[in-house]
Amino acid sequence: MTRRRFGAGIFAGAMAAQTPPSRGEQRPTYPGIWRFRFGTPEPQTPVSARHYPVAESALRDLAVVTKCPISPSEITGRRSRRGYHLRLPLEPGEMIYGLGLQFQSFLQRGSKKTLRVNADPAADLGDSHAPVPFYVSNHGYGVFVDTARYAAFYCGDKVRVDDPHEPPPEQPEVMAAVAQLPKQFERYHMAKSSHVEVEIPVAAGVDVYIFAGPQMREAVQRYVLFSGGGALPPRWGLGFWYRAYGGATQDEVIALADELRSQNIPCDVLGLEPGWQSHSYSCSFTWSSNFPDPRKALDKLNAQNYHVNLWEHAFTNPTAPFYADLKPYSGDYEVWDGLVPDFAGSQARKIVGDYHDANLVSAGVAGFKLDECDNSDFTHYWSFPEISKFPSGLDGEQMHCFFGLRYQDTMQAIFERRKTRTWGLVRSSHALAAPSPYTLYSDLYDHREFIRAVANASFCGLLWCPEVRDAKDNEDLIRRLQTVIFSPLAMVNAWYIRNPPWKQVDREANNAGQFAAGWQDMEQTCRKLVELRMQLIPYLYSAYVRYHQSGLPPFRALVMDYPLDPQTWAIDDEYLMGDSVLVAPVVRGEKKRRLYLPEGDWFDFWTSAKISGQQWLDNDVPLDRIPVFVKAGTLLPLARVTQHTADPAVFELTVRRYGPGDLLAVLHEDDGSLSGPITTVQLEWRENEDAGSVSRPSNSTSMSYSVTRWERTTE
Amino acid sequence: MTRRRFGAGIFAGAMAAQTPPSRGEQRPTYPGIWRFRFGTPEPQTPVSARHYPVAESALRDLAVVTKCPISPSEITGRRSRRGYHLRLPLEPGEMIYGLGLQFQSFLQRGSKKTLRVNADPAADLGDSHAPVPFYVSNHGYGVFVDTARYAAFYCGDKVRVDDPHEPPPEQPEVMAAVAQLPKQFERYHMAKSSHVEVEIPVAAGVDVYIFAGPQMREAVQRYVLFSGGGALPPRWGLGFWYRAYGGATQDEVIALADELRSQNIPCDVLGLEPGWQSHSYSCSFTWSSNFPDPRKALDKLNAQNYHVNLWEHAFTNPTAPFYADLKPYSGDYEVWDGLVPDFAGSQARKIVGDYHDANLVSAGVAGFKLDECDNSDFTHYWSFPEISKFPSGLDGEQMHCFFGLRYQDTMQAIFERRKTRTWGLVRSSHALAAPSPYTLYSDLYDHREFIRAVANASFCGLLWCPEVRDAKDNEDLIRRLQTVIFSPLAMVNAWYIRNPPWKQVDREANNAGQFAAGWQDMEQTCRKLVELRMQLIPYLYSAYVRYHQSGLPPFRALVMDYPLDPQTWAIDDEYLMGDSVLVAPVVRGEKKRRLYLPEGDWFDFWTSAKISGQQWLDNDVPLDRIPVFVKAGTLLPLARVTQHTADPAVFELTVRRYGPGDLLAVLHEDDGSLSGPITTVQLEWRENEDAGSVSRPSNSTSMSYSVTRWERTTE
Repeated sequence: MTRRRFGAGIFAGAMAAQTPPSRGEQRPTYPGIWRFRFGTPEPQTPVSARHYPVAESALRDLAVVTKCPISPSEITGRRSRRGYHLRLPLEPGEMIYGLGLQFQSFLQRGSKKTLRVNADPAADLGDSHAPVPFYVSNHGYGVFVDTARYAAFYCGDKVRVDDPHEPPPEQPEVMAAVAQLPKQFERYHMAKSSHVEVEIPVAAGVDVYIFAGPQMREAVQRYVLFSGGGALPPRWGLGFWYRAYGGATQDEVIALADELRSQNIPCDVLGLEPGWQSHSYSCSFTWSSNFPDPRKALDKLNAQNYHVNLWEHAFTNPTAPFYADLKPYSGDYEVWDGLVPDFAGSQARKIVGDYHDANLVSAGVAGFKLDECDNSDFTHYWSFPEISKFPSGLDGEQMHCFFGLRYQDTMQAIFERRKTRTWGLVRSSHALAAPSPYTLYSDLYDHREFIRAVANASFCGLLWCPEVRDAKDNEDLIRRLQTVIFSPLAMVNAWYIRNPPWKQVDREANNAGQFAAGWQDMEQTCRKLVELRMQLIPYLYSAYVRYHQSGLPPFRALVMDYPLDPQTWAIDDEYLMGDSVLVAPVVRGEKKRRLYLPEGDWFDFWTSAKISGQQWLDNDVPLDRIPVFVKAGTLLPLARVTQHTADPAVFELTVRRYGPGDLLAVLHEDDGSLSGPITTVQLEWRENEDAGSVSRPSNSTSMSYSVTRWERTTE
Repeated sequence: MTRRRFGAGIFAGAMAAQTPPSRGEQRPTYPGIWRFRFGTPEPQTPVSARHYPVAESALRDLAVVTKCPISPSEITGRRSRRGYHLRLPLEPGEMIYGLGLQFQSFLQRGSKKTLRVNADPAADLGDSHAPVPFYVSNHGYGVFVDTARYAAFYCGDKVRVDDPHEPPPEQPEVMAAVAQLPKQFERYHMAKSSHVEVEIPVAAGVDVYIFAGPQMREAVQRYVLFSGGGALPPRWGLGFWYRAYGGATQDEVIALADELRSQNIPCDVLGLEPGWQSHSYSCSFTWSSNFPDPRKALDKLNAQNYHVNLWEHAFTNPTAPFYADLKPYSGDYEVWDGLVPDFAGSQARKIVGDYHDANLVSAGVAGFKLDECDNSDFTHYWSFPEISKFPSGLDGEQMHCFFGLRYQDTMQAIFERRKTRTWGLVRSSHALAAPSPYTLYSDLYDHREFIRAVANASFCGLLWCPEVRDAKDNEDLIRRLQTVIFSPLAMVNAWYIRNPPWKQVDREANNAGQFAAGWQDMEQTCRKLVELRMQLIPYLYSAYVRYHQSGLPPFRALVMDYPLDPQTWAIDDEYLMGDSVLVAPVVRGEKKRRLYLPEGDWFDFWTSAKISGQQWLDNDVPLDRIPVFVKAGTLLPLARVTQHTADPAVFELTVRRYGPGDLLAVLHEDDGSLSGPITTVQLEWRENEDAGSVSRPSNSTSMSYSVTRWERTTE
């Protein structure tokens, strides 16, 4: 894409009367990434505090770009009493995305976003439990501002008196697309505001990183690889997750585990609450009387091939065994009577990590759900204040930006020592989070926002779980379950119902053990969906390997793959799963679903009907089918349904052929360890031979995919 | 009230490991007011930039308090990289109020409020178009933090690790009252958090003012007098205001004026839109073609005893005659293509003020409605950014705090030169605003919040108009009109309907000229309400004189007069009008109204039935009556109904006697000029003579109150 520029140097003129802005000092960095240092950055930033190293060699494998996609002279900065102020150019009609897990908006141009860590965003202000100071442009580059402050991003919503007021005429097709966008992206802003401005409070300087494309996808890949590459889940992390009732006893959890197996509901991960939050809600990290023999329970569940995930949060009650040790390495404010561990310091990480290792992981716990590590001090008045001080030197604002991420690091150290993979859930994240083996969730619950979040997460190296909790009715349950099956993590979180939701969606009736009439049909519907997830694991696993190795997010907004098609720019209710599957989830009440298919031919996943792309569809959406489309030219492997991923039958594939000609798919195998070798397995369909084959390197020692059936779909 | 203290000195110990906190340096100030200087305050603060002088002599008339109500050793501060951090003590069960015009909350203990200037608060976060860094305690003191920053007030919602964790047992009656409060004020916070903490961003220091009581009322009075005393409206400002349809032509406005007079709807002020906002919404300050001869229109309206109020906002379009002059004295960002005048500098004030004087006030304009001077950059992305710079040295955050107030000052300079009073409407205000002759309004419209705002405004020297705009139905219209009649400014703002709302509440039908069946009955109902407002003017005027002379707000939350009665602590839907009238507005849909009468005997305004106080009532609320109660011992003067306040008949009174015994009331007369002498007129009822009298000083030259009837009410 040609970058038309106007107004270069204008900013310098306008500011001359005040503190002159400066250009950043260019520092060496990685291929396709430029770093500009402005002033004196703070000592603690996402980059300086990083746990994972840059994935340097993978960065070298990307397309070579030798010229910074934004002219260095157009990136300027200025120190003020308030902090540091950056200015970056925008072209007419240019669209920007990202800034973390935004629930209420997608296209960020025309808005102001203040990246406060807040679990309960009251409006579309930038508040998020996973804000990320990174944005990406459909003009093919990304910008990362390396700060752990609540930076304000003015995304082309402001016009300076001395800015050029007559931009060159815009491309008609761009402005036609803009005209279709929601009101906030009105022509006014598109035409007049020519800059993104960023204000970082407190800081006397900041590093800015520019990630080259040539397209959005590559810019995101570079950001993810700069973060360290995407996390690779253990295969079980891609199976089905079920979180048990929060008040369940040991016996009740075991009964649930038995029920799932006896009812043939596949499940790889069981989530539990150990009941250690009963003290003013801060945690004792000691199993409650609900679990008289937790080790026995863990053994029993592990023997059934369940991986056990424990709920916790970090605020440490005085009754916790490590409270006294932790106290000197905690913040100066309490949360719910508990200490706030200073996870930015190695001592707190060691104290908390060692305890978890010795008492929980060693007993068979596979991972954790790290709750409440965000903040709701803007709405519900909980968590530590921004005025907090931590021994590591952080204040509360910085710690809020880091808390979720450093908490993940604390847990990860355990599994790194053990050289095993974990996968967990977390309520907060921030910049450079891609390598961390956690999927985000939240207490919010708007289904439409949950779908948008899958798309939004993709821009910033985040993974999001649109978990199913309660449901208004069976339709709601099915629609939500369909979405979560086609999402980074497939989970039903039944923490406030004693019985699976498919038996009864009404919470009170569920807890009273009153099951809905005909619940068996609902169970069957849900079973089928969970089975579909199991079938998709080989395909999904390879999408994650690609995330891990080359930084390409496994779930992506359409605009990331089709940035030149203006129709995709505002689509926040569809996304790609891997390279070949397009998902358009439906929410309760929708009888028709307007959706867009980008260029190329597509096949309806359910009917195999072929549909031409570059068009909008307005289809009926029967309740039993979430709209899913497969790109022509795809070999889609579907695994044999198993009850869990430890069953070797997961490697038995049916391969669906979408479209004519010779087709190729790449799958991956490995030993499941933290950093063992990953073997590439190639599926190939040769049209003229009317035959397919599976090939792998001769030195491969891993478990083996085999194809039991090659299916031709309608054409 | 005895102040029980615990934990003095604890803060100093807790902070010792970090930057030690310091005590403020005590500076000389006014009677009953203590000032503590921490660090080096910013040059531009509400106090340093004040337009009105302190009402020193009135301060000396208040009760003498020689000891600071908070021990100076318990007020500590600390500079950090983030700005300045203050800590002030709180007692168990202590309640705090204020922080400006908060719409969504009343009792502030247990919450965090960040005082951002925002017209559209998305939630109860502290955002307000009139935030004020002043709070007042039911333990009888007020605290003012002299800053034009978005300070964060942690109102006892945070607990430090080293704070005392076992406070002395609370008074049972206090905790019983607390138990009735909304959840956020739960016992947990009451018991454990012992401080208010305030963080002022950017600043390296700040002045803190403590205002003595002995009770809340006196603390507020001291704050208002320190601000300069309350503004005294011209008598016409207390009459009825009607804002015409925004697109009305000159002839249509004149027809409206004729209609109101011919229909006998009293009206003192007509509001107009000159149509000068048509250029990208910034203002040209030039009458549009709707007004071919504005001077003639003004003459005609003035001749009918209408005062004319013009809508405007400050963002100055390039077509404005003074644009070029203003440009060097403007901010570096545009709003809606217009300049942002630097009202903190005398040049911008002079340019804008002189133009208004020469072209508008001289032509007969009585005042202005200053719109859009707040900010909505957190929600709708308009107004100048916080990163703005102004020639006066302010940044955008400071300017947002000042903009509404300095804009009022700009207009006030005109009227001060002319030695006349004005009264206007304004969309933004801040600290020390009491002397400014403006009433706040906003684009929000929740009736319940509007009522709360009347009560909340009272704590901080603000006046609020719960204006009537549209209505869902006749009930809504009546309920809203009832509230506004018993409010600081009685206005119907019909800017988007061509005809009065009593003819048709449906907007489309109204604009199509389709009137509701039986609209004459609605007109009569509304006429009666407006007439009631006219009757109340003598009483109201004296309440405002008291505000002006002794700082006591004319409308007050109940807790301000009854701070020792825990029942009043959370009441945000009743308020006092003057000293003797209690108002409990009703919102649409309420058939019963639970309300509280404080100690003493009260009389129903409508039936004159006597009701004992210190009890909750749960009365039916017929649509034609807003619950209003008059305190026993009151002589309530009611003026003869006139069509406007220029009619001398407004001084003819019927005086109602509430309760037995000798009764006294004080009224005021003056010449209506800006600072002419105010004469005190005394109404007296002597029970044993069964006769009343009116007395005034012998040197009084003003127009004269006379009593045409003394009415006994039922006892």
